[in-house]
Amino acid sequence: MIEIIVGRNAVLEALRADRPIERISLEEGTKVDGRLAEIERLARMKDIIIEYVPRHALDVEGRYGVHQGVVAFASSRPSFTLADLIAVSTQKNEPAFYVILDGVEDPHNLGAVIRTAEATGVHGVITRSRRAVGLTPAAVKAAAGAAEYVPLVQVPNITQAIEVLKKKGVWIVGIDMAGKDVYTDIDYSLPTAIVIGAEGTGISALVRSKCDFLAYIPMRGKITSLNTSVAAAVVLYEALKQRTSKH
Amino acid sequence: MIEIIVGRNAVLEALRADRPIERISLEEGTKVDGRLAEIERLARMKDIIIEYVPRHALDVEGRYGVHQGVVAFASSRPSFTLADLIAVSTQKNEPAFYVILDGVEDPHNLGAVIRTAEATGVHGVITRSRRAVGLTPAAVKAAAGAAEYVPLVQVPNITQAIEVLKKKGVWIVGIDMAGKDVYTDIDYSLPTAIVIGAEGTGISALVRSKCDFLAYIPMRGKITSLNTSVAAAVVLYEALKQRTSKH
Repeated sequence: MIEIIVGRNAVLEALRADRPIERISLEEGTKVDGRLAEIERLARMKDIIIEYVPRHALDVEGRYGVHQGVVAFASSRPSFTLADLIAVSTQKNEPAFYVILDGVEDPHNLGAVIRTAEATGVHGVITRSRRAVGLTPAAVKAAAGAAEYVPLVQVPNITQAIEVLKKKGVWIVGIDMAGKDVYTDIDYSLPTAIVIGAEGTGISALVRSKCDFLAYIPMRGKITSLNTSVAAAVVLYEALKQRTSKH
Repeated sequence: MIEIIVGRNAVLEALRADRPIERISLEEGTKVDGRLAEIERLARMKDIIIEYVPRHALDVEGRYGVHQGVVAFASSRPSFTLADLIAVSTQKNEPAFYVILDGVEDPHNLGAVIRTAEATGVHGVITRSRRAVGLTPAAVKAAAGAAEYVPLVQVPNITQAIEVLKKKGVWIVGIDMAGKDVYTDIDYSLPTAIVIGAEGTGISALVRSKCDFLAYIPMRGKITSLNTSVAAAVVLYEALKQRTSKH
């Protein structure tokens, strides 16, 4: 299967991460900046075919987002399993550090969570394979290249995945408005999976019942929810701070 | 001037905040949920005209975003000045707490920052009136109602605005990859304005030179930047934590 990668940052990161790319379409006469020059240089080095096409062809090929004059056609990502994630943690010699997304439907939110996960050293992201968004071109673009580096595991059933992780000694921390603890009172230096729910509905009742801790993010205004990717970022940076200071 | 408000959350919050709304268009036969029922109830209570229109009419009126069956036509927001922001801080009897956006161009980022600013009790957001995005319908929608509660000040010149705030005893904290301090080492319990730069280019050189502190957000991965609204959220929640624990 072919995956379409759209936009300068996303294509550049795919090249840097050595993704197998079949060809790259570049817009004829587009303004060349440092990123585009680097895309051309890397593609030549790797013997990847570059086609120069008129803008309207790119508008069709890159129709899932703002293509910024470049679209790449890559072989699909390898798929990962929970066992792969656990292997990542072992290999890094760090306590497990995962994000579980319970039903996130917006590709921009998925991409933004992956981007922040990469920045905070998360070992992998777990999502539902049904009734949730996958790594669409829009999600890959929102991840700004981070999708190349963070393993994404799609599981049919989040509660079963949680059971597997618990048996490996991973603590499950659900972020929920009705949580008992403030998120800053949780100890993230232990092996941890952070569960983030869908915008609007939050974590599903069954998944919530499987969490070891339910923590809330304080809010001082009249609006009572945060954007999914913002909620994830706030908790992930608290976790990173704790992990850095305890190392 | 008329402002178009698009989407169920955004229209509902505009009604709750008592924005003067001239009329509301609802999609004929759209699925009614709790929010839509509440929109109809509040509109009737406030004697606001409701028009039931076919979907294609809404697709035109609400063309700036996913309208979810509802578009409202409101009178424009009052415009705010720096003096208004300072008055908000005085009235709340809290040390000043502002966000300065230096050249943010993406309406989703502007909206997302406003949403998090509202959740963390920020007194106001300052943006450039030129070469930056304003409160477009897409920004208002991304703010999920928070644009009704957070004063937004548009200034022609960010460095001049910084000088005004400095004279009022406000410390200026720029968030910058090349910063000297980790963002968690800054004392946000003092009167503070947090400066966030544009995605890609960051804070402009001139504005950077006016900051009292330049702080960075640590990153552990291969990608070297965060989404603008994520960077803002990480710093704003650190500030909220410090302010809450010191009160």
